Amino acid sequence: MTPAPVTAAPTAGEERLPQPATADIDLVTVLHALGDPVRMRLLLSYADGAEHSCAPRDLGLEHLHKSTVSHHMRVLREAGVTTTRVAGRNRFVSLRRADLDARFPGLLDALLASAPATA
Amino acid sequence: MTPAPVTAAPTAGEERLPQPATADIDLVTVLHALGDPVRMRLLLSYADGAEHSCAPRDLGLEHLHKSTVSHHMRVLREAGVTTTRVAGRNRFVSLRRADLDARFPGLLDALLASAPATA
Repeated sequence: MTPAPVTAAPTAGEERLPQPATADIDLVTVLHALGDPVRMRLLLSYADGAEHSCAPRDLGLEHLHKSTVSHHMRVLREAGVTTTRVAGRNRFVSLRRADLDARFPGLLDALLASAPATA
Repeated sequence: MTPAPVTAAPTAGEERLPQPATADIDLVTVLHALGDPVRMRLLLSYADGAEHSCAPRDLGLEHLHKSTVSHHMRVLREAGVTTTRVAGRNRFVSLRRADLDARFPGLLDALLASAPATA
């Protein structure tokens, strides 16, 4: 198990999938990650700030294959948009809102304000 | 010559390449357009509000083939990020800042404020 750079020090016993440190979140990579209708939909789901399971049906994506949903979630995580907490066999995904706000002030607010009009 | 939907009524004798009307500019399409390092660089060039020629050397892109630069400029135009004015054999590209600000308030400001840190 290779430790990945994580933004916040994980709580004891907490495990997270690899993700870029806040300072390494790249704007173009984030835009590429969000420039896809499924991933934009995921962003809107995660905008509530809660942790979400990875089950496609819980994300309104039951029309997609699980591996497709997994791919999209990985793109978001590797871009620094989301963080994934591992708890036993379960994985919980949430938005890295504080990290994104720190790195790109105003961007997430502008995206979330505009997205409902087109998503 | 098929007239394309244009945002502002063109001045008499003015010709523009096809572009989406303001109301048709799609957020995900814009993000996809800007989720590329060359196109992000073009956005930064256009951020001055001026019209720019399409010559790669004028855009700091002399390392790219002209057809590659043309492709990237077309993606930006078709996404609604830029407008291209045709004057005889010359084409002049500029940012659709007012249209983007109207459609996605705060987005362009947030992008331009963040982009220099990573571009």
